[in-house]
Amino acid sequence: MAERSPESPGFSCPTPLLDHEHVAIAHGGGGLLSRELVERIFLPAFSNPLLAELGDAAVLDATEELAGGGRLAVSIDAHVVRPLFFPGGSIGDLAVNGTVNDLAMSGARPIALTAAFILEEGLPLADLAAVVERMAAAARRAGVRIVAGDTKVIERGSGHGLSITTSGVGIVPATSRLGREPIRPGDVVLASGTIGDHGMAVMSVREGLEFDAAIESDSAPLTGLVREILAACPATRLLRDPTRGGVAASLNEIAERAKVGIEIDEAAIPVEPAVAAACELLGLDPLLVANEGKLLAIVPQKSAEPVLAAMRSHELGRRAVAIGRVVADHPRVVVMRTAVGGTRIVAMPVGDQLPRIC
Amino acid sequence: MAERSPESPGFSCPTPLLDHEHVAIAHGGGGLLSRELVERIFLPAFSNPLLAELGDAAVLDATEELAGGGRLAVSIDAHVVRPLFFPGGSIGDLAVNGTVNDLAMSGARPIALTAAFILEEGLPLADLAAVVERMAAAARRAGVRIVAGDTKVIERGSGHGLSITTSGVGIVPATSRLGREPIRPGDVVLASGTIGDHGMAVMSVREGLEFDAAIESDSAPLTGLVREILAACPATRLLRDPTRGGVAASLNEIAERAKVGIEIDEAAIPVEPAVAAACELLGLDPLLVANEGKLLAIVPQKSAEPVLAAMRSHELGRRAVAIGRVVADHPRVVVMRTAVGGTRIVAMPVGDQLPRIC
Repeated sequence: MAERSPESPGFSCPTPLLDHEHVAIAHGGGGLLSRELVERIFLPAFSNPLLAELGDAAVLDATEELAGGGRLAVSIDAHVVRPLFFPGGSIGDLAVNGTVNDLAMSGARPIALTAAFILEEGLPLADLAAVVERMAAAARRAGVRIVAGDTKVIERGSGHGLSITTSGVGIVPATSRLGREPIRPGDVVLASGTIGDHGMAVMSVREGLEFDAAIESDSAPLTGLVREILAACPATRLLRDPTRGGVAASLNEIAERAKVGIEIDEAAIPVEPAVAAACELLGLDPLLVANEGKLLAIVPQKSAEPVLAAMRSHELGRRAVAIGRVVADHPRVVVMRTAVGGTRIVAMPVGDQLPRIC
Repeated sequence: MAERSPESPGFSCPTPLLDHEHVAIAHGGGGLLSRELVERIFLPAFSNPLLAELGDAAVLDATEELAGGGRLAVSIDAHVVRPLFFPGGSIGDLAVNGTVNDLAMSGARPIALTAAFILEEGLPLADLAAVVERMAAAARRAGVRIVAGDTKVIERGSGHGLSITTSGVGIVPATSRLGREPIRPGDVVLASGTIGDHGMAVMSVREGLEFDAAIESDSAPLTGLVREILAACPATRLLRDPTRGGVAASLNEIAERAKVGIEIDEAAIPVEPAVAAACELLGLDPLLVANEGKLLAIVPQKSAEPVLAAMRSHELGRRAVAIGRVVADHPRVVVMRTAVGGTRIVAMPVGDQLPRIC
């Protein structure tokens, strides 16, 4: 642009200072090149007046949201997934949805996100712009703004590429009863849909696997689905999104903290055939594979059917099912009734041999 | 510990699952090893009930703080400084103080921080623990809690080591007038102390420089100093901490956004002799060097002396001085009267050839 527009904050950069197409160390220096990066890539995508202030912090009025005693929820998530783009998503989608979902699991509606980028020198600016576009689209879908950010550049050759850390602030309504009642035997464990999609989408790209049906990441913002669940059952005991470590890690954490046993039914757990096939090929258990757009809900038995109906009425919960129950036996242990009629312990995974899945 | 203490949340890890002394990929997998890292390193250092919940998000009651219409300030900062420890600070100090100061510059008192760690496989756990200790100490000094976190691990060999992104939430009191009045000619530019200390402390370690007096980073939380300034002059126009890009970048940004000229006096700008010597040796201008515990304040002329007195009464403002003024001439341009009687333009730096200074 030859003229700077009246809305354009800060420095005008009629022509790029460097005509290179890659991130340079100087982009992280806090000078004109840093500003140019912000003005060319971040501001147009995330367009909002709070971000455009480019202050050290963004200041927002949340009086209305907090009226009547709402509480603040805060969360943070670093994202290092490789490759940056995969079927059904990108690091940009994950960076937004991951933090939105962390807030949603506490019953909070997100009101603002912040994002910090660590770029490797040499990263194509086109890749960065594409990721940022995906973040902006994900933020629009989730109904939240990215109001502050930061960018650092590290030296070429690290193979680091790009990481994005997002942090979120949300409001938990004063009336929320989520998590206020203990989990007890008889409560039902619901899953909002198929499991293992995200992890296997990333893995299948990395391993160059081809299936009849492509495996797509389930990356999505769960705020709306949570709203439906809590409307159907304000006494919902707990919500958890089974990301790293998968359903196995989430259920073990729940059993451990609530000091209850959990029993799940293998036959009830929905797994896409392509995901099941990929897991078998790679020797992985879908219960251990990361999800990025699914949740587990623990609800009182009498609310299970109404909550399932509410979930199924939402596009992200169409395949919601009950997968198990809370039991008085074997406290802190998760047991699965297998499809062939036996039982096995679902252990807390020790680690994960698949780095950079989210 | 042979017994788990009753307060200990989550999994008990009586003995480490792996007896290695370095970060492993599995520490980032969301399973037992992730939990062990959290329980051995993060929870003891950051000890607080909100973090100990280990939920997806931390939920806090800010009703009291927000009563009467306080606004929320949010900020985020990624930290990639090398080396991890340097005279006067560490990446841990920077990670806390950087975000605390971003909030402070908007007149906010921090109420909660969140922290995300990206670890390189092979990082000595002792280094991580030492950094985390420094973060905890910095948080105590700043009077803020780290209430939520995340850890990811990336593959060995990247040279990435450790980065820490922190995000903060603060409250701007309803009565705050900071930034509500425009900057005008006649306003005075104050600096809270010597400039260039942080950047030259890091550089002197990297370059192996030795001076008679060691150069120490000025990393410190500025919340208390800001409180003194705003008490002395509620009509303070603007506060800015001159980090990356130094005083030159901050003043250029201020001049650009307020569409005013700024004139500073070289002789008035306090620089430690060792910093001046190091800058001369390395061919650097102290105006371009990063600070991590200093601020610039623009105040009405009549308030300059009272604000300086208030700053000097605070341990972080003992060497506060007026370094210049806002002028009607040369809008958007920063000019320096040099020590030898000339004038020169202080340009916005283009980039920074020193990566990983913060």
